[in-house]
This record gives sequence, C-alpha cells and structure tokens, in this order.
Amino acid sequence: MPLINIILTPAEFEYYNISTNDNIIVVIDIFRATSTIVTALANGAKSVIPVSSIDEARRLKANGFLIAGEKNGIPIDGFDFGNSPLDFINVEKIKNKDIVITTTNGTQAIQVAKNKGQIIIGSFLNLNAVADYILQQNKDLVLLCAGWKNKFNLEDFVFAGSLTHYLYSTKKYELDSDSALLGYLTFDRSRRKLKEFLNMASHKKRLENLNLEADIDFCLTINKYPIVPKLVNDKIILG
Amino acid sequence: MPLINIILTPAEFEYYNISTNDNIIVVIDIFRATSTIVTALANGAKSVIPVSSIDEARRLKANGFLIAGEKNGIPIDGFDFGNSPLDFINVEKIKNKDIVITTTNGTQAIQVAKNKGQIIIGSFLNLNAVADYILQQNKDLVLLCAGWKNKFNLEDFVFAGSLTHYLYSTKKYELDSDSALLGYLTFDRSRRKLKEFLNMASHKKRLENLNLEADIDFCLTINKYPIVPKLVNDKIILG
Repeated sequence: MPLINIILTPAEFEYYNISTNDNIIVVIDIFRATSTIVTALANGAKSVIPVSSIDEARRLKANGFLIAGEKNGIPIDGFDFGNSPLDFINVEKIKNKDIVITTTNGTQAIQVAKNKGQIIIGSFLNLNAVADYILQQNKDLVLLCAGWKNKFNLEDFVFAGSLTHYLYSTKKYELDSDSALLGYLTFDRSRRKLKEFLNMASHKKRLENLNLEADIDFCLTINKYPIVPKLVNDKIILG
Repeated sequence: MPLINIILTPAEFEYYNISTNDNIIVVIDIFRATSTIVTALANGAKSVIPVSSIDEARRLKANGFLIAGEKNGIPIDGFDFGNSPLDFINVEKIKNKDIVITTTNGTQAIQVAKNKGQIIIGSFLNLNAVADYILQQNKDLVLLCAGWKNKFNLEDFVFAGSLTHYLYSTKKYELDSDSALLGYLTFDRSRRKLKEFLNMASHKKRLENLNLEADIDFCLTINKYPIVPKLVNDKIILG
C-alpha cells in the first residue's frame, strides 16, 4: 500500500528517506505562494516559473518575462505583481504568459523537493482536484509544508491533514509518520468546523498584517479551481 | 507576558530566535531518554551526565562512571544500563552515583539547547512538577521535542501540548508560534481521553518493537515523580 508522509518544513525534508523519485510531492504554501500559483494558472497564465532569488527574477524580466513575488511578505520594487492571488484574477496581461515567481518559503520548498518525485501544487483552492489526481496515481505521497522560514505553519499543516484524511479514509494508503497521524487526527477533529479552525490558525497573522485580510479569506476558499498544477522541466503548468 | 514556543525537532532549533539565555528550555524525549533521566534521579542517582557519543561514554566508564544508553533503540556492549527507565527503579548501585548517558535523540536535543537558557528535563512522570516550577520563574519558555532523528514525534509533542495547555490556561503566558497553538489545541481536544490518544500515538512503535511495551506504559504514567531535573555545569541534577 502506498505511504503518506507529512513533512513540516523544508529543513526537515533531508531527514525523511525520500530515496526514489517515484513519489508524488505536494508542495503547500497556503499563505500565499501555492494559492497564488493555482490562481494564476486558473486565470489563464501559460506557466509559472519558480526561482530562488530576486536577482534571478529580475534577469528574467529583462528577457521579457512577467515577474511576481515578495520577500518576507513585502512587494519588491520593479516587479509586475506581488504574491497575492488577487493580483491574478481576471487580468488580461497574464493570458498565455509565463510568469516568474519568487517567494520567501514556497519556492524554497519546491527547490528542496526537485528530482525527488513528481511535484504538484496544492492549496485549499484546488484541494479535491489534487486529492483525486493522487488517488489515480497509487504512489507514495509526500506532503511538504513550506512553513515560514523553516518554522511550522498551521494552515499548511491543516491542508496536509485534510488531504491525508481524504486519502487515508479510502483505505488505500498507510500513514508513514507521526506527523501524518497528527495531520489526520487534527483534520478529523476539526472538519465540522474547518473554517473556524482555520480562522483561529490565521488570527495572529491577520493581526500582524492587516493588508493580508482579503488574501487570507481567499486562500481559505475550498475547491474554487479544480486544477492540478505540475512542475515539468522547471515550469509549473496544467498538464 | 512571557512567551511559549514549541520546537518540533532539534534541527528546527536554529530557526527560532532564541537569542538570549534568559529562557527556560524543557527538553522532551518521552520514549525514552527524559523519562529515564527523571527515573534515575528519582531513584537516588546523584547526577545524570548526557554525552553525545558512545566513545565518550566508554572513556568515562574507564574513569569509574556508570554508563547507560542506546543507539537506534538498541543496548550497547559494555554499558551498565540501557535506556529503559525500568533499569533504574530500586537499584542499589545507582545511589549517589553519577550516571553517564548517551541516546539517539535526547542527548542531541540537550546539546543544541546548551547555553540558550536554563535546561530542565520534562516527561509525563514529572509533568506537574515541571509546570509548577516554570510558573514560578516567569520567563520565556521553549519546549524542545527531541523527536526521532529530527523527525516529528507525537508523544513528545503531546507532552509539550500538555504543558502549554497548563500554562496558557493560567493567562500568564502568550503562545508565540503556530506549533504552540497546535500543541494547545491538540491537548485541549484529547485531555479527556489522553491515555487513549497516547496509546494511538504509540501504537505503531509498540508493533515495531515488542520489547518496548512495558517501557511505553511506564513512560506514559503521569506525575509519578514530582521532581525537576536541571542541567547545571553539564550535569543533570535535582536542585
């Protein structure tokens, strides 16, 4: 039976024995990178290209790409977009364009997972689509939470727990770690009031950054975009 | 108001901003290092000296110390004791002796926390004594889970959650991280069936190592030894 692991931060990745590349790895950065990537692709972008540094994004802008991103949650000078999903909704100029993105945590999570399996992009916006895709593949699953600078983040973990619960309940998977077990239990105990639980999880973040209020509500919307973005040759595309 | 953080593995420690040494750091390795240290001291050992390597322990044996420990859960040739708390109960030869200990995860957790605050040793065996001691100090609190080879461990986390719940409920502390919030919530939702929850957490470990059954039951005993072991000059003592 395939296994489910939840990895709580990118720094933890190396301690898990991800030895083959025959895994599915779901990268999760609810506030906001993976929610933003899903939104951009659902709104017509041709691809999203994650890069590690602001300098690399700027070089690519010189080559004609649109560039998006934030550093420590703050917009960057000269960038076309921030890291808010709301920047990409019904925006004509992204249609069929490649968008380069760099963020504090999400792109780093993608980097550590590269070549360790098929990377897909998860968020509440595409929860069920991702779950159904995974079920068709029948492979070991790694749910990689981006966290915040290698610290545990509750909203990423609750998403990982939701996905774990969905899959484990089919009886086609085994839980391979204590983190996967806690993810399952956490979701199991909060599913009837998931919104309330997520609001509690995000309460402190809302207070710390009032500008994020609308983004947070949007990122906690479930199943708005039934798409499965995948990393293929360093580009995230719908495939 | 002082802050509570839960750090999920020793590898995560560096990402938390533990910048002064004016903290209390509770090291937690329920199965089994911190449960064993508490038991040895409660049964008359003068001190427990944590060391990082088997070689260092062997050198100290040559100098007349008793040595205890395990590597990957297995006893070590030539050692006086393993890492089972049951090895130390009502044992005449430990009375007033210094016992050197080396384990896979617990001693490593102590190493990363050294010089970052006052280190105390926590386990279910001394839960309330530790909580009451912390309340008297009014300092920022770091709950450092030893985990298993830098992977998340549920029993360490549930202990950290218990302590967090006890302290936060006094309204004298703030939760400083999402991990502390989840610890609080996890305990809050499981306290009426804590034993059942902990049995679920340990179920897989019991299956993997039938020899641990008695140790696991013992380590999940609450408030058996009302003592507060502290690290002072590289020795863990009651003080």
